[in-house]
Formats: sequence, C-alpha cells, structure tokens
Amino acid sequence: MTTDPHTGAQSDTGIEPSDEATVDAIAGAASAASVTLAGRDREWRASFLSSLASSLENHGDRLVAIAQSETGLTPARLMGELKRSCFQLNLFAEAVRDGGFLEATIDHATETSLGLQPDVRRLLMPLGPVAVFGSSNFPFAFSVPGGDTASALAAGNPVVVKAHSAHLLTSRAAFEALQEGARQCQAPDGTLGIVFGQPAGTALVSHPAIAAVGFTGSLGAAQHLRAAIDRRARPIPFYGELQSVNPLIISAAALAERSNQIAAGLAASITASGGQLCTKPGIAFLPSGAAADLFADLLAASVSEADPGVLLNERVLAGFQVAESELEAASGVRSIAGRPGSKDGGGFRVNARVLRVRAADLTADHTIEAFGPLVLLVDYDGDEQLVAALSHVPDSLTTTLHIETQDEAWAAALLPKISESCGRVIFNGFPTGVRVSWAQHHGGPWPSTNTLHTSVGVTAMRRFLRPFAWQNTPEPLLPAELRDDYRGIPRRIDGELVLATL
Amino acid sequence: MTTDPHTGAQSDTGIEPSDEATVDAIAGAASAASVTLAGRDREWRASFLSSLASSLENHGDRLVAIAQSETGLTPARLMGELKRSCFQLNLFAEAVRDGGFLEATIDHATETSLGLQPDVRRLLMPLGPVAVFGSSNFPFAFSVPGGDTASALAAGNPVVVKAHSAHLLTSRAAFEALQEGARQCQAPDGTLGIVFGQPAGTALVSHPAIAAVGFTGSLGAAQHLRAAIDRRARPIPFYGELQSVNPLIISAAALAERSNQIAAGLAASITASGGQLCTKPGIAFLPSGAAADLFADLLAASVSEADPGVLLNERVLAGFQVAESELEAASGVRSIAGRPGSKDGGGFRVNARVLRVRAADLTADHTIEAFGPLVLLVDYDGDEQLVAALSHVPDSLTTTLHIETQDEAWAAALLPKISESCGRVIFNGFPTGVRVSWAQHHGGPWPSTNTLHTSVGVTAMRRFLRPFAWQNTPEPLLPAELRDDYRGIPRRIDGELVLATL
Repeated sequence: MTTDPHTGAQSDTGIEPSDEATVDAIAGAASAASVTLAGRDREWRASFLSSLASSLENHGDRLVAIAQSETGLTPARLMGELKRSCFQLNLFAEAVRDGGFLEATIDHATETSLGLQPDVRRLLMPLGPVAVFGSSNFPFAFSVPGGDTASALAAGNPVVVKAHSAHLLTSRAAFEALQEGARQCQAPDGTLGIVFGQPAGTALVSHPAIAAVGFTGSLGAAQHLRAAIDRRARPIPFYGELQSVNPLIISAAALAERSNQIAAGLAASITASGGQLCTKPGIAFLPSGAAADLFADLLAASVSEADPGVLLNERVLAGFQVAESELEAASGVRSIAGRPGSKDGGGFRVNARVLRVRAADLTADHTIEAFGPLVLLVDYDGDEQLVAALSHVPDSLTTTLHIETQDEAWAAALLPKISESCGRVIFNGFPTGVRVSWAQHHGGPWPSTNTLHTSVGVTAMRRFLRPFAWQNTPEPLLPAELRDDYRGIPRRIDGELVLATL
Repeated sequence: MTTDPHTGAQSDTGIEPSDEATVDAIAGAASAASVTLAGRDREWRASFLSSLASSLENHGDRLVAIAQSETGLTPARLMGELKRSCFQLNLFAEAVRDGGFLEATIDHATETSLGLQPDVRRLLMPLGPVAVFGSSNFPFAFSVPGGDTASALAAGNPVVVKAHSAHLLTSRAAFEALQEGARQCQAPDGTLGIVFGQPAGTALVSHPAIAAVGFTGSLGAAQHLRAAIDRRARPIPFYGELQSVNPLIISAAALAERSNQIAAGLAASITASGGQLCTKPGIAFLPSGAAADLFADLLAASVSEADPGVLLNERVLAGFQVAESELEAASGVRSIAGRPGSKDGGGFRVNARVLRVRAADLTADHTIEAFGPLVLLVDYDGDEQLVAALSHVPDSLTTTLHIETQDEAWAAALLPKISESCGRVIFNGFPTGVRVSWAQHHGGPWPSTNTLHTSVGVTAMRRFLRPFAWQNTPEPLLPAELRDDYRGIPRRIDGELVLATL
C-alpha cells in the first residue's frame, strides 16, 4: 500500500514483500559482486558513480512526480533533493579519483632501535555488501540513491537497500534508475539490490553476507535492527543516524542587532519540508526581556504565515501529535503560534507551532524531539541559567549560535561544552541544509547517532572500509596503489606524506 | 596475590581491589583532566608522550625484574618489550607533531550547482577518558604503558587502566613510572589512572565518564565486558583484540628450496615467549610428500630443543592443556613433538608441541586456538584441498605465505580469500614480532577482533577520536589548525590535499 499524505488516500502498489529466499538470493548476488567489484580499478568506480548520477538526472521529473504523491514534499524540494543525490554521487566519484581515502601507507624495511623491521604497507579495502535503510523524510538523498548508498558504493562495496515503507514506489523507481546507470557501466549483477517489507529488512541484517548496515531513522526502528544484529554469529558495524533536537542559542547582542532576520530564518528552518529534517532546530534559547518578546511575536507571525506542513505519513503524524501534546503539557509552556490537531485541507497537514517556556522551568520533559514543524523558545536570564538549561538538551547532531563580534569571548567559553554535545556547530545560520562536501560532519554523540562517523560528506566512505596490511610482499602481488613506482594518489611513505604527481 | 610462574609460589601484593567509590573518583578525575588536556597544544602533547617514554626507560631494569617474577617471561624479551613501549610512545609523539591524524579539512563558502554553500571545517577531536584493559602476555607493550594507552593519550584523552590480575605489581610499577613522566610535564591530575580487580573493571566500563574501551584479551573476558557496556544508558565504542589462529601456508617450491630455514623460523615463532603471542602461527599448511615429512622432522627436532615454555599463569596453563588435549583427540591427529602435561622444573612449564594431520581430515575441531607453544601441521594434496582446509580456519589477525618467485600467480589466486579472512598478510617471514609503524595494521575480522581498527601502529589513534565540524565560524573561535593562515600540518582545502610548510 502507498498513501498520499495530501489526502490520506491509499492505493495498492503491487509491490510484494520480499520473502526470505529472495533476500538470500539478493544477498548472495551482492556477495558475488563484491569479488568482481574488487577487481575493477578506481577509474571504473568513479565513472560508475557518475553514471548513476546521470541516470537519476535523466529520470528526474518522473521520480519527483512519484515521490510527491507518496511523501507530500513539494516538487521544488524534491527536485533539490534529487540534485543533491546526483551532486553527492559525483563528489564521491571525485574522491575515488583522488584516492586519498585509501590512506595508502608504505613503511620500507629499515633498521630501528628495535632491530631490523620488515616492509609493511597499508591500504583501506572494501568491507563487503552493505545493507542500507533509508529514511522517510528524504526519499532520495537519504534513501535508495542517498548518502549511505553512494558512500558504500564509492568505497567499493555492493549495496542492498531496504525500501522505506512510506515511499515504496519512489524507492522502486529510484532503484530502477540506478540499475540503468549500473548496467551502462557493466557493473556486475548484484552490485545493487533492493528488498521490501520489514521482515525482509530483519532477514537482510541477519544475513551472513552482509558486512555493515547504514541506517537513518528512529531510535525505535534502530533498536529493532540492533537486536537482530546482536543475534548474528559474526558481529557487523551498524551505523545509525537516529534523532536530534538541535539547540539554537541567540546572544543578547544578536537579538538586538538581527531580530527580524533571525526570526525569519528560524521560521523557514522549522517549517521547511514540514519541519521533518533531522537538523531542524527544535529548541531556541534567547535572553529574556522586551527584545525576546518582540522576537517571539515576529517568529509566531512568520510561522503562522508559512504553508501548512504536510507530514510524511500517518506514523509521523501520530508521533508529532504525541510530542506536541507532551510539550504543551510540560510545566510552564505557553503556546504562541499554531494550535494542535490536523490542519484543514485533509491528509496529514498540521499547524506549525511555536511554544515558549522560561529556562528556569526547563526539564528533560521539554527537550523531547518533535519531528515536525515545532520549536520551543526558551527565555534565559544570564549565562548560568543558559548553561543549566542546555544540560537538559539531549546530545544532538548540531548546535547553532547567533552572536555578534563582541560576543566571541562569550561564545568561546560556551564552545567546549557545545563541542562535547554535538557534531557540528553553526554560527549565524541555521543547521538545516547540510552541505555535502569534504569537510562535512553529520553525526553526533548518542542519542543523535550510534557512531563516531559521519553519514554526509566524503569521509562517510570510511564506515565501509577496513584496513589491510601487506608485509614483505612481492611487488606484483601488491595493489597498484602500494607499489613503489605508483604516483597517482597521496601516500604516506616512511612517515612522510607525499602528494600525487599526475 | 601474585604468582611466580617459574615455581607456582604465591605471595601477597598488598594491592587492594579498587572499590566503586575509588573507580568513581578516578573516572571523575579523568573527566576533569579531559578539559585541561583539550587546552594543551600538540607540541605539549608530543613532549608529554616522550616524557613518559623517558621515565619508563629510566625505570627499565626495575620494571623488568618485577615483570620477570610475575610473568615467567625472560629478561631479554621483557627488556625488548619495554623498549617497544618506549619506541611506541615516541612514534606517537612524532605523529602528534605531524598532525595528519587530525584530518584537518577546510571547505570555503562557495557557489555550487546546489546554490551557495557555507564554510565548513572539520577536525578530529579527542573522545574523552579511555578505559584500557591490558593483556596477560604483554605486561608492557599491551598493558599499562602499551599501545592502547599510548594511542589514547596521543589522541588527547586521559586513560584509566585496569591492571591485569596476572601482573599486578608490574602494572603498578609501570603506572608509577608513567605518573612520574606525566608530572614532569605538568600533566593535569587524572590524565592517568589505574584500578585493580575485576569488579573495578566492570564498574569502569559502566561509568558515565568513560568514552571508549580498549581491550586485549580472551573472547570470554571480552563478552563479560561487552555485557556491561551494553547495559550503559549511553553506548560507547569497545575495541577488542580477541584471539587468532594465524594460518601459515608453504608452497611446494618454498618447501623444496628453504625447508631448513622455514622449519627453524617456525620453531622460533611458536616457542618464543612460550608461544603466548596473539600472532603465533597455530596452524601450518604444507604440500604432502617426502619433503613434508622431512620438514616435520626438522621442526619437531627444533621445537624439542627449544627452552621449556613457562606459561604466564594458572589460567593460561589450564586453557593450553584443554586445547592441547582437544586437538590431540581430534580425528586423524598425530603427535610428532613433545608430550602433554607439565614439563619438569615446576611452575607453569609445558612442553612445546607439534601435531600433524592430513588436510582431508581437517574440521573446525582442528582449528581452535591453543594459546601456548603448539602448532598443527596440515598436509595438503593440491590447491583445492588447501582452499577447502583453509575454510575451516577462523578468521585471524594474520596469514603467512612462504613462496618462491615462480609461485606468484599461485599466491595471487589465493590472495582475495586470504585478504578477506585476516588483517595482515606476511610473505616469507613469520607473523610474530609486529612492527610498530605508520603502515601497521594489527586487527582482523571477527573473531580475531571486534573492530575495523588497528591496535598497533599510528592509526590506532583513530579509535579514540571523533570528527567535529565548524560552520561559518569566526576565525578566532576556530582551533588553530583550522584557521586559514595556519600552515603547520597537512590539510585538505577545498578538496585538495596541501602539505605542511614549516
């Protein structure tokens, strides 16, 4: 079944859940593809990634139309997301050509204070078939053709995706587009696979051929998978991006200087995509006083004017409504924009909400994640109260600071605590709209993720690689990148980093 | 209690098990030290590591004497191991000065096909206090002053060691030597801590201040710790180096060419340190025939002439004897050197053993780890039988190949399977004596380790670091290494790797 979130109307997809034999065949094909892929060079792999991007782009309009009817996201947002998926694949192609991700290292045999030491060479190798569980809220960029898939393929692994139940048709169409791109490069059968249905997902992570799992979704779903993974004879890494409240802090000077601009930006950040972004700022701290009241009015007005949020599916709607009512019932909370309950217009529409509370009243009850268009404003009196209030916020993917130049010492004092409790700090901007680049880190301490790695950006590849060392190995038996005369990638030779000479 | 493995005599150490309040105080001090350490620069950290090495060296003779009476290892081996610990600390100091481990990355704000992108900069940061569980078989290099401690400190973290029950006095003395070196650098209190007793170890990994665990030891002990870690509210990484059989494969040509030399090397590799090395080759494959019989005789003679192995403690002795009798009882196994039971001379002395079986008879019963001086020779008839027999060997830290130049194509065909089932391949040498260097990888697939990381070599630091990203951050608030004008370390800037200019 698929549901149109605009109307709530259901229709049959004709997609059958994958049974255990199907999962076994797909995982087996992925395992066989591993071996073939290991024999392809980096140039092939880069072209392959770009070919996937081209194919997605070619099918863009059709994919966006399918996704729109399944997710309720706007065509503009979906086309942006599809372009992001393509950009991501091409960036990984660039990283594969660069070769730095291999961490090629050569220590020639040498005499040391511990005696004669052998020749040792190290490279990162593909891990093996990767299972990818996409998110509901990003049908492209964190799903079938998303960051986990792109980074696992870039690292040289086959990928088996478990289609998200909220966008089965989109998943299948995106998968077919990727398959077309893969075939154009003569990628081995089994390089890409897809399975449908929750039992198939559990069977997939339990399958001996699967070497790692990438996951973006709820803590509850992650715990279900974790339990299945823990039952395996052979443990595998499980990389989960789970939940995040994303605190935002405004200094007195920033509030005085840029109240309008910050309010407009925050309104856009919490209402975009129905507020269903893992980096949506869910809680904003501002110094109490007349300026805060004015800011709250501006924000409430902006949010009320925003297009109604259409939530992705019934489960997200129910989850949002529970969080919304719990937050509204928490001690000292006032509503300053929106009202609970579904918005007129049918389907899964909800009102965007702004709630407000004083920092002195803040407890863990106020800092639950509401996945949807809602922000809690927190009025603080002085730094001590701010720091105490922040301690109630669960560790997050991001923290955002709005400051003026004169606040730099103030911000510097906050930074150690902030950097301990998130994975990215943003100054004078908004955490939504995660740049896909070399330096990006999209990850954070528990419960925002369960890993020390990123799921966005070039270094996401590291999750799906493992080091291997060759000792005293005859030159012809070494990977090309570890032979003495190779010059195509950066390498560390006898302790010294040496750039590629092309 | 401490026991002299030469005689089995016990004596009181006067060391009390650490109670829960002590563990809490030590973990709390480590947490406080984290903050201070984060404020020290890399130059300080490098000097600190070298100061620890100097202090260990200064106390070398005393440390070796204590360790000898507790472990039964020879003074030469122990002094070598202590030097290795010092070498390791100094290598990490070099890596800290180099700064490449920080993976500093700068993406300036720029216009892309996805619109204007913000400035994002990334660096690896210390993770927080690390708990280290050292091994019984390396009282220095994999214990209090070992690789886990050195790499965690090099990454900028405090370390709390749980002393191994088999060498409490050595642990305490080594800890005191490190403390002396730490004080000479004004390292903050809490940078180094030590706890005693198994309950203290469990309390340590359960403590909220602990951010990661490094472990070298048995699968059983690892499972006990894993259970405690799984009960934490906040999961933390657990890096375990567990067990390994380390297959060694000899080609027909190598056997014809270098029978004597390989037999002598193998005998040394399995008897050194009483065979109690995680990389000891426990199973050796050789082509059946007259040359194999001659090789077996040579090996049996060498092994019988070797000094008696003194095992580390009663538990290791019992474990060895169980494995020895299980292997001897496995179908088709013949004994060709040594006899079961304790060797004359008292204490935990055992006979070195060589067992032999035909590949056709090999099952999983033949491939258990015997931690001590024992090797199982396996006679294979042809490649197909070799490959089938190898599939019964659990994945290991290492695989060793003895080949001649004409065997390179043969070895190339074996390599994909070998590289899948271990972490390091060694040609024409022996896996024991793990080089400490930039390229080393000491790790392998389950059950040899539970991680994708190494516990030996410079990249062991990566286990105790986490990435962090700064977006649109004012220059004064960035770490020095991420400022535009910094030039002291290699960095990736806008996708291009740039070397340090000193």
